[in-house]
Amino acid sequence: MSRGEFDIIRDYFRRRAGQREDLLLGIGDDGAVVKAAGELAWVVDTINSGVHFPEDAPAHVVGHRVLAVNLSDMVAMGADPRWALLALTLPVAEEAWLDDFCDGFFRLAGEAGCVLAGGDLTRGPLAATVTLLGPLHGRAVTRAGARVGDDILVSGTLGDARAGLDIALGDGAPADGAEAFLLNRYLYPAPRLALAPLLPRYAHAALDLSDGLCADLSHMLEASGVGAELSLAELPLSEALAAHAPEEARRLALAGGDDYEIVCAVDPGQREAFMAAAAAAGVSLTRIGRVTDDKELRVLDEAGEPEPLPGSFRHFGDHDA
Amino acid sequence: MSRGEFDIIRDYFRRRAGQREDLLLGIGDDGAVVKAAGELAWVVDTINSGVHFPEDAPAHVVGHRVLAVNLSDMVAMGADPRWALLALTLPVAEEAWLDDFCDGFFRLAGEAGCVLAGGDLTRGPLAATVTLLGPLHGRAVTRAGARVGDDILVSGTLGDARAGLDIALGDGAPADGAEAFLLNRYLYPAPRLALAPLLPRYAHAALDLSDGLCADLSHMLEASGVGAELSLAELPLSEALAAHAPEEARRLALAGGDDYEIVCAVDPGQREAFMAAAAAAGVSLTRIGRVTDDKELRVLDEAGEPEPLPGSFRHFGDHDA
Repeated sequence: MSRGEFDIIRDYFRRRAGQREDLLLGIGDDGAVVKAAGELAWVVDTINSGVHFPEDAPAHVVGHRVLAVNLSDMVAMGADPRWALLALTLPVAEEAWLDDFCDGFFRLAGEAGCVLAGGDLTRGPLAATVTLLGPLHGRAVTRAGARVGDDILVSGTLGDARAGLDIALGDGAPADGAEAFLLNRYLYPAPRLALAPLLPRYAHAALDLSDGLCADLSHMLEASGVGAELSLAELPLSEALAAHAPEEARRLALAGGDDYEIVCAVDPGQREAFMAAAAAAGVSLTRIGRVTDDKELRVLDEAGEPEPLPGSFRHFGDHDA
Repeated sequence: MSRGEFDIIRDYFRRRAGQREDLLLGIGDDGAVVKAAGELAWVVDTINSGVHFPEDAPAHVVGHRVLAVNLSDMVAMGADPRWALLALTLPVAEEAWLDDFCDGFFRLAGEAGCVLAGGDLTRGPLAATVTLLGPLHGRAVTRAGARVGDDILVSGTLGDARAGLDIALGDGAPADGAEAFLLNRYLYPAPRLALAPLLPRYAHAALDLSDGLCADLSHMLEASGVGAELSLAELPLSEALAAHAPEEARRLALAGGDDYEIVCAVDPGQREAFMAAAAAAGVSLTRIGRVTDDKELRVLDEAGEPEPLPGSFRHFGDHDA
């Protein structure tokens, strides 16, 4: 695309970028300038067409998703996502596509109180990278702080997005309300923004679920030098998933990716207060197990017998790998 | 690529990432945590295979380049590039390629005093995005501060990279020392790190040259609401370029991209002091013209006649657009 087209796009983003007093220099120079003090969390995530979203995904899905996956990382750190940079790679510049992309991006940015401080536009295969920066709400919540005896909590419900992905990979047309719910859970992951200020107060360790509960929780256990025992019966399932895939629901909850829920380790004495504070902020938390000292991840079925652990489900793109 | 491969790559980067006291949490969690105070410059740039570098470019060229283009933006802002995040998209994970990429990336990171604080690894068409963050050396140097009567200075020499690109697009084998120099100037852009602390003291406005002198300088003039008159005879040319392309050299200097030199507007009374300070830090600066009040960019030939302005040369990838 030509330089003139780039200028048009840049002006377009600038009009919608938003403002904050602590953004001293925004879109249009060699870089942005922000005013900050103290400890800042900083994340970056890329999503690629045909890998992290279907090649025919609507542009607002792409715009929403690239911001959502980064916001989810900031939440898991216990950070306030104040400022964003967007690096967008496009094969062609189509105004309707960009308009739609911006609708998805800026709607979520508005919810998160996040302004677009700058970015980069390049030509190439469709891909989007966002980097977010912002202050911690308190101490940094890492993967490494889980303690033996902690309760393991998870937000929302699990497995929905993986079921939604299958619907998206089919004809993409939901057959009923349950399928519509699941498809929406895949297409529009909702970062648990309300948990960001609560995690530093209540959680010893946290991370967000992108690759599936077992896969991601393993990272926390490894970083913390501990193990865990999960209860299959306690995994929170949506009514839609239970109705859509009654046989598979628990397996999807254990191993399905793209949920972008938060899993965390919490002192049992703090659990009730945390769950009440989260509920007051609109997020349900469920206790799904506890941290153990044997450095293994076990899942127990309703009879208390160990359930064989499923292999990590793969991302969309790995289907054609 | 599999999760196991990703873990290997992550460990590999972690070993070479470097450390700073103000990097509180580095590679391996949901995000990085840095300790900062005051005004921070923040940049992001993506480079795509076949667009910003040839598809067959050696991996260390890619690793060097993605960091160099971002460092150049930080220099132009007058900022200290302390911390980096890298989002790397690879079609396959090849250890030899990654090793070579890291050689290019970390050699330059070491020169710049920059540590890798984290990143993201994804599967997809080869592309690399870097975001850099760091404190300003003083005030932010923007594109908008040029004043009528300012001298326009440029670092190094112009046009070399564009001539080097043609060599790279040919058989890539330099025929002589001049061609080897030019090819190297294209493959390994050298951000003018030494200018970062000097620009806030001496320059009213600055930017780095990625798209060519005329194209990029126009952005500064527009942002500053001024014009400029450049002297064709004053454009700094390398001996190699003058020998390799005597007829074309000045046109390449005006319009060739990928130089990553710094152009800036400086009060004439400060010019000598700035040039001396830059020379002491190893960077040559050349006065190539002055800022005017007529909001146009003019280039005068040796007889003082206006030279027709060349269209902006295009990036590598635009050749096959």
